[in-house]
Amino acid sequence: MSLVSRSASPGDPETEPAGPSASRIASDLDRLAQIGAGRPGEVSRLAFTSQDREAHDLVSRWMIEAGLVVRTDTFGNTIGEQISTHGPWLALGSHLDSVPSGGRYDGIVGVVAALEIARMYVRSQTSLHHPLRIVAFANEEGARFGEACLGSKAIVGLLTPTDADRLIDASGITLADEMRSVGFDPQRIHESRWRPDEVAAYFELHIEQGRVLESESVQVGLVDAIAGNTRLRCQIDGRADHSGGTRMHERRDALSAAAELVLAVERLANERERTTTVATVGRLEVFPNSVTTIPGVARLTIDVRDVDSDRQREAARDAITIAEQICARRQVTLQVEVISDTSPSVLPLWLRQVAEGACQEEGVRHRVLSSGAGHDAQILARITPAALLFVPSREGLSHVPEEWTSAEDIAAGVRVLASTVVAADR
Amino acid sequence: MSLVSRSASPGDPETEPAGPSASRIASDLDRLAQIGAGRPGEVSRLAFTSQDREAHDLVSRWMIEAGLVVRTDTFGNTIGEQISTHGPWLALGSHLDSVPSGGRYDGIVGVVAALEIARMYVRSQTSLHHPLRIVAFANEEGARFGEACLGSKAIVGLLTPTDADRLIDASGITLADEMRSVGFDPQRIHESRWRPDEVAAYFELHIEQGRVLESESVQVGLVDAIAGNTRLRCQIDGRADHSGGTRMHERRDALSAAAELVLAVERLANERERTTTVATVGRLEVFPNSVTTIPGVARLTIDVRDVDSDRQREAARDAITIAEQICARRQVTLQVEVISDTSPSVLPLWLRQVAEGACQEEGVRHRVLSSGAGHDAQILARITPAALLFVPSREGLSHVPEEWTSAEDIAAGVRVLASTVVAADR
Repeated sequence: MSLVSRSASPGDPETEPAGPSASRIASDLDRLAQIGAGRPGEVSRLAFTSQDREAHDLVSRWMIEAGLVVRTDTFGNTIGEQISTHGPWLALGSHLDSVPSGGRYDGIVGVVAALEIARMYVRSQTSLHHPLRIVAFANEEGARFGEACLGSKAIVGLLTPTDADRLIDASGITLADEMRSVGFDPQRIHESRWRPDEVAAYFELHIEQGRVLESESVQVGLVDAIAGNTRLRCQIDGRADHSGGTRMHERRDALSAAAELVLAVERLANERERTTTVATVGRLEVFPNSVTTIPGVARLTIDVRDVDSDRQREAARDAITIAEQICARRQVTLQVEVISDTSPSVLPLWLRQVAEGACQEEGVRHRVLSSGAGHDAQILARITPAALLFVPSREGLSHVPEEWTSAEDIAAGVRVLASTVVAADR
Repeated sequence: MSLVSRSASPGDPETEPAGPSASRIASDLDRLAQIGAGRPGEVSRLAFTSQDREAHDLVSRWMIEAGLVVRTDTFGNTIGEQISTHGPWLALGSHLDSVPSGGRYDGIVGVVAALEIARMYVRSQTSLHHPLRIVAFANEEGARFGEACLGSKAIVGLLTPTDADRLIDASGITLADEMRSVGFDPQRIHESRWRPDEVAAYFELHIEQGRVLESESVQVGLVDAIAGNTRLRCQIDGRADHSGGTRMHERRDALSAAAELVLAVERLANERERTTTVATVGRLEVFPNSVTTIPGVARLTIDVRDVDSDRQREAARDAITIAEQICARRQVTLQVEVISDTSPSVLPLWLRQVAEGACQEEGVRHRVLSSGAGHDAQILARITPAALLFVPSREGLSHVPEEWTSAEDIAAGVRVLASTVVAADR
């Protein structure tokens, strides 16, 4: 029996209803969306900016109001705990930072959901065998410093002061400098590390950022695996020439070679045997980028993802081989650099089955799916059993102001998450 | 018999040798290359900047030293004339402005050659039946205000004060404003117009900006036709989505559509029946241009050139049709805009034959070829017979600091140009 259905029984004047408050969730989302707001729906709250810290401060106050003991760790993660003399803890959370011109749900939903679950225990005056630890991770988006999930990486011990000096944003500011500017000492990053035995499990609710749930009218997705991700940076050097004076057979057009590569990457991911592979050229820049000059240089990125580690690396290797063939044939030179390479994470089956039971108990339509996007859950999964639950994204949109999930879907996700936590606690 | 061979006869103490002075040409090129100089070979002398006007002032002083009567017209063209009571004039010239980070030969060679020919007449104390008019055109490159050959267009009456208000550079400054800032009144553009009967012919020496002459070890090219040029701007609107969360079949990738179009444009120009067509995608921009976002928007330009007007327009139409097919199949939207459309210019055969005779007389290897690039000569051809002569470009390079033509090739070009002027004068 879940906390929700147990406590939502009517006619008990002693306790408030302990189910999630849809209106409180909606008002929390609205309030957070004001910090870094742009045009309607738009949120720009890049990691370690004043807006980002303002959001952490607000969540910190809400945690205190929910009766939690709050601390900010040495990397800027905000952590609220139920008062307890013993662990291990059940951790719930997500992140508060956004991409530039992002939306108001990505990450935020998971933090607001975790907070609401903490409040439900206060309202119902019940407690679990394991105390709750609510986390708002810092710097999950790779948008600013190029590498994602930095707050959760600090917690599992994957981030060092050297990384903080190495990671640089587009304006040349290092992560270390920016940490210092908002009051954190990069030399103390290691102090934010958790011992594996202090947490019993980690739970995260997130928007899907895809169309699977919406297209099947399913309210909750249970993630079995998070795709691995290999990112390549390619530079093609041809020869800039006058567009009028240079005959077709004399050309070394860097953009034509890049265009072939864009289509080859797409074709590769579409191959029948690569059912779970996705591959994207998201960035392309041309130099000198002039109407009357044949492009001399093209730079592009290739983003390959797969829940199968072998297929992921094979697709990345194949993309490089094809790029080499195209460039050799066109007599242009190619440089390829692997800018990041993360393996897929398979989440534990038993915890997913617990969540599946919670969906059945709550009467919420659900399905198992994998995540193409990376999440803090895959980092936490290195030290503790982790569960990742998705709610639908309208039209699959994310990282844009049009990102939207209905209040009903969020409430259903919170109910399932709460029941999952209760069941896991047993 | 040419002026050059006639006057270069040794043993005559009365007159200086009247052939072109290679050392003077080289020192003029060096001196002009200092105005707007960057790294070695680099010249940035955009139209109507202070550097551009400094170059015009210097050439103006050289014209006075060469005994010419000098004026700057109402559009900033610098014009030097032999003292004469009657026309029509034989006009010679080219331009002094450059593209950003351009080289030291494009345009300049023609101005320096015309000046040296004027000096040759002073040295040999001879004169022609028609007096000479040397012109340094303003604003030939379309690099700054998007439209090329503005100085020569003003001279033939193709430029109005309205155009000066309409044309805007990348920083938002109108041509009219920039003219005023260097002392010209855009309302008086029409005063720079020449009557067709005041010039008998126009001659221009220019670097080839292609590889034809170099690859055949030919010193002088005689241009039969200047390609027409249709420029299109395309915008493809797809859907920006998360690169991890969006399956391949769900995507509306604007860059993939653009890549197909880049290759289709190249293929189209390579078709067997399109021997003289060249087509180029020189600009391509992707939005939001993020590693982990499927491109939502791609903007690109298509530059189509042909010396055959029908083939030029047909190739441009075909490019649009193919773009529509690609975008319909990929379910992305397409907007196409024709940003400029200039017809090819066929230069008069008789004047080219005069130049051919001059090549034979001077013993200079030559060939007839067409010009893919646009030139002031094609504009002057609207009011007077025009001849355009090319000297080789090393590796065909132009609009880059590596642009280079040997002093010997330039001297050969000047000798042929001088002999052509003499022969045409008869």
